[in-house]
Formats: sequence, C-alpha cells, structure tokens
Amino acid sequence: MTDGQLALGIDIGGTKIAGGIVDESGVVVDCVRRKTPGHAVVAVEEAIVSVVEELTQRAETGSYGSVGMVGVGAAGWVSSDRSTVLFSPHLAWRNTPLRADLRERIALPIWVDNDANAAAWAEYRFGAARGHETAACVTLGTGIGGGVISAGRLQRGAFGVAGEWGHTRVVPDGRRCVCGNRGCWEQYASGRALARAAQELVEVAPAAASALLSMVRGDATRLTGADVTEAALAGDPAAIGLVQEVGSWLGEGIVTIAMIIDPSVIVVGGGVSRLGDLLLGPARERFNAALPGLGYRPVPDIVEAKLGPDAGMIGAADLARAAAGLNSHEERRT
Amino acid sequence: MTDGQLALGIDIGGTKIAGGIVDESGVVVDCVRRKTPGHAVVAVEEAIVSVVEELTQRAETGSYGSVGMVGVGAAGWVSSDRSTVLFSPHLAWRNTPLRADLRERIALPIWVDNDANAAAWAEYRFGAARGHETAACVTLGTGIGGGVISAGRLQRGAFGVAGEWGHTRVVPDGRRCVCGNRGCWEQYASGRALARAAQELVEVAPAAASALLSMVRGDATRLTGADVTEAALAGDPAAIGLVQEVGSWLGEGIVTIAMIIDPSVIVVGGGVSRLGDLLLGPARERFNAALPGLGYRPVPDIVEAKLGPDAGMIGAADLARAAAGLNSHEERRT
Repeated sequence: MTDGQLALGIDIGGTKIAGGIVDESGVVVDCVRRKTPGHAVVAVEEAIVSVVEELTQRAETGSYGSVGMVGVGAAGWVSSDRSTVLFSPHLAWRNTPLRADLRERIALPIWVDNDANAAAWAEYRFGAARGHETAACVTLGTGIGGGVISAGRLQRGAFGVAGEWGHTRVVPDGRRCVCGNRGCWEQYASGRALARAAQELVEVAPAAASALLSMVRGDATRLTGADVTEAALAGDPAAIGLVQEVGSWLGEGIVTIAMIIDPSVIVVGGGVSRLGDLLLGPARERFNAALPGLGYRPVPDIVEAKLGPDAGMIGAADLARAAAGLNSHEERRT
Repeated sequence: MTDGQLALGIDIGGTKIAGGIVDESGVVVDCVRRKTPGHAVVAVEEAIVSVVEELTQRAETGSYGSVGMVGVGAAGWVSSDRSTVLFSPHLAWRNTPLRADLRERIALPIWVDNDANAAAWAEYRFGAARGHETAACVTLGTGIGGGVISAGRLQRGAFGVAGEWGHTRVVPDGRRCVCGNRGCWEQYASGRALARAAQELVEVAPAAASALLSMVRGDATRLTGADVTEAALAGDPAAIGLVQEVGSWLGEGIVTIAMIIDPSVIVVGGGVSRLGDLLLGPARERFNAALPGLGYRPVPDIVEAKLGPDAGMIGAADLARAAAGLNSHEERRT
C-alpha cells in the first residue's frame, strides 16, 4: 500500500455517523460507527473530529498505511466550492463553514460533499452504477437523498444542490415536510414514510397489524422504518403491504428523474433498500405504468445499491482522493 | 463570410416549421416559415426537404455564402446518436429514422436533435443563458419542452431524452395528457393549458370573459393560447387572471427543475413567453414560495428567452455546425 493513497471518509446522517479508511479500490480498511450526537453544529463537529482522531491513530499504530486526506459526506446542501453546508433539513447546519471549522482542528486536507452525492459517486466508481455514463442514485434514509453522474462526473449543479429530489413535490398541498414545504417526495417514499404508514395502519387497523404492534410492545409511535423493513423481510403481510405502498411512490418519483436526467440506471440505496425486490418490484411496476412513451424509448434499469451503508464513507473518501489529484475521475480541487 | 460556415437550421413543431440560414454568431441570414402539413411522417419529411431546397437555392443565388450542413430540431424524443426520433407526443414519429430518411434526399450533412434542446443550446450560446455554466431552458409551445446545459455542454442523457419535463407529473391522477399519462406539467403550464383554462372560463362564466369570447365570435372551442396571450397583453383582466394561473403552475414545475438540475438560470421561451412578467411574475412568486431552503441557498434567475421563435432554428443550425467540428462548443459527431 502506497502511503497517502488511503483516504478517510465520513458519512454524517441525521441519526448516524460512519467513518472509514478507504483504499484506492474502494475497500474499507477500517471503520467506526456512532450515533449522531444531537443536531447542534458544535456537537456534530466534535463527533467528526473524534472519529478522525480515532481512525488516524489506529492507522498509525496499525500496519495498513497512513491517511492522506479526509472527505466528509454531510446530510445537507453543500456549496459548489465544497466548503459550506448551506442548509440541512435534518441537522442544524445553516450556512455553516464546515470545511473551515474542521480545518482548524484536523491537520489533513479536507473536502465536504453532500452525503448522497458521496454515496452516488461510490456506486458509480465501485458499485451498481459502474460502467454507466449517466446514472442517478436515490438514497432512502430518514429522507431521500440523491446524486447525479453524467459523462462520468458528479454533477453538483450551479450552487451545489443538484440531485435534491427528496424535496420535489409529488402531491400538491400534500403532507408537511421537514423542509417546511408540503407534498415532498420524501414524505411518501423514505424510511420515515414507511414508519408513518405503519403508525397510521396500527392506529386505524390494529388487528391487521398485530405483528408490527408486538415489535414495539403496543406503542405505535415507536415504530420505525427499520421495524417495518424487518417485519416485511420476515414475511409479515401487513408490513409487505406498506412496503408496496412506499415502493409505488418510489417508482412515481423515479419517473420524474428519468424524464429530466435520462440516466441508463437508477440505483436505489439507503437502509430501506435492504428490502430488495419487495420494494423495487412495486417501484418498477409503477415506473413502467407511468413512464411516458413506454415502448418507444429505452428504459433505465432500477437496481439495488451494492455498497450498502458504506457507500457514503467510500464515496466521501474517493471524492477527497480525487480532489487531491490522486485519481483521474474528478478534477483536482483545492 | 467563409464558405461552409453557414448552417441551415430547421425547427419542426406540432403546428409550425421554421427554417433558417444561420451564421456562426447566431444571426439568421434568411428564413422560411410554414405550417406543419399534418402529423404524418412522409408529409413532414416532404416539408423539411422543400424548406431545405428553397433555402439552399436562395443561398446559391444570393450573395451571403453557401450552406455547409443542416440541423433539424424536431418536436420529439431523439436518440442519443442524433439519428432517430423515438417518439413524438405531437407528431406521428415512432422510431422514425429521420436522419437516414433525409440523407437520401438532401446532399448536405445532417444531424437531428430535439427541438427544445436546440432552443436551449441557442439561448446558451447567443441568448439569455449566455455565460451560465449550468442552465435549464423551458420552452412553452403546444406542450412544454426542455433542454439542459451543464458544464457548457448540452446534456442529452443516456438515451437522448433528458430535459423532458413537460411530462413530469405535477398532479397525481390529474388531467389526461397527449402522452397518454395523467397530470403532466404541460397540461397545466403550456400554451394549450392557457387555451383550456380560457375555454373553461368562457363556458362557466361567459360574462366575466366577454373580451375573450368576442375574439372568437362566441365560439369558445376556437380560443387558443395565442388569443389569451394577446388579450392579456392588451390588458383584459380575465385573460390576465388566466395567465397568472398558468404562471403559478409554471413556477411550481420550475422548483422541480431547480431541485434536480440546480441551474443558475432558468430561461423561459416559446410563444407564451411573450407575456414577459405577466407570466414570469406569478411564476417567480410561486417559485419563491415553494423552493425548499429559501434563505439558505442561492436562487436561480427565472428569465425570458431572448431569441424568440428563432431559437429552435438557430440552435439546430449551431449544433449541426458543432457536430461538423466547426466550433469548439460541442464534440464533433459524424
């Protein structure tokens, strides 16, 4: 292993922080996972610094080489110069100079990207979108994130907020979203949407949802998307019905992506994507029913992500490596 | 004028065909306009050939130089190799090998593009999107067309159908669209939408729409988007109200484009865009109300197109010139 070829990637979501040391072929050499310590800017920065310190120390004492740079994938909108988190629907970042803040406390070169952009980049470089010139990745977490690859480059947009399809409206005057708006796609097709659908079902029809209810000892408000995912994977018909509902909304939104970006593949990642065809089957069905011009145009594949929960850290690390000029897949940026 | 620097551009819409000889700075040297002769494939090809013959003959007898290549901007989805019209919602093209058909009858090199892509390219090169690295153009005609420029390149997508936002759904189970689907944006924000809104108003509230009704001698079914546009420009309050309604839907859809593509400018062109701020005012108002994260992110400009009805032919000509390797703004394609 050449010194400096290792990059440290950190993925910061609304609930979890994952840090990993990643080599140039996308393999995670070492990693650390923590809960996000609340939403406050300072607490999140503390957690990032502590993850970086722990991993770089382990790298120094270990035998796998030294870390050359840090990439952060943050659950927020990141300015196109990759330094500032403009806004986060799920955390407290509001025009937060995250790169500058971290540079004061971390000696390595640092770049910041949107978490879903990082995950999309990882799937393009090492995962399910490999070999596709134009690809879209939909990350289903607490909300819905997204990333676009076109002509082999991550498309960040003019202001750094491209691919933010979680907040495109699918229902006029629909459900209230954490972003303040109504009817956003992520209110219908995310992990949170799955939890909400389960809570509704349990409230209105407890007899039909007894398996779900027993998972949380009768307290419907505690049901999460992960609970419903587990129940569906275990074969619970009520949970499978909810997944189909959410899957159908997933397909509905993917039509919009296909019409605007026109990718040859749409990769679905994030926790809920563990459901595989239980989720993607209904999504494809809805997609095929709703795609205009079907039969007269090539149809993109809708596939499960390959890198699972590691995608964010792998992509963040690889984007940092690329920004430092260590691979040819992205422009060098300082 | 250097021989061969002139390109012939043809814009084929659902109702009109416009052909023009365009120089390397986007100036239309000569042009011809016709009605689209029905929707049949053969009739449309005849019309294209006749426009090319007329213009090339005039170029030969005129003193402005000879034409080196032909670019066609067609109201349909064009394959990524720029040869086949996959599908047209408004004309009869279904996997039609338009480039090969025309090559049999026209001696000049020919390339085919989507009409709205051509218009977008023209606005980027010579019009309202000039100087913007990432731009989206929304063309309001019979339907809604679109084109995306990113990093100074026209983004055609993996299959050639990028930017087809006219058929993204804004209302679940909404109005039936010519594409076969329901709730497509163009049913709410195009010239046709304006006509439909006027017809509805006249039917339900004839007293409130007397000016519109008198334009078509009492026959509401004859009201077109152009009629409403004229009445609104003349100050008719009923027509202005309809334009505001359509403008608001325009802004609603532009939010989706902003969230996915993240352009620094959104150019609105096509016949209805003559309304200027009468249309764009309500669009911007709706956009500002519906854009997530407002106040924490830069906001793209929403501006009127500069090249008017010539945009399609200018862009088609310039894309053909670029494909022939005569400018550096696009890759050479044969």
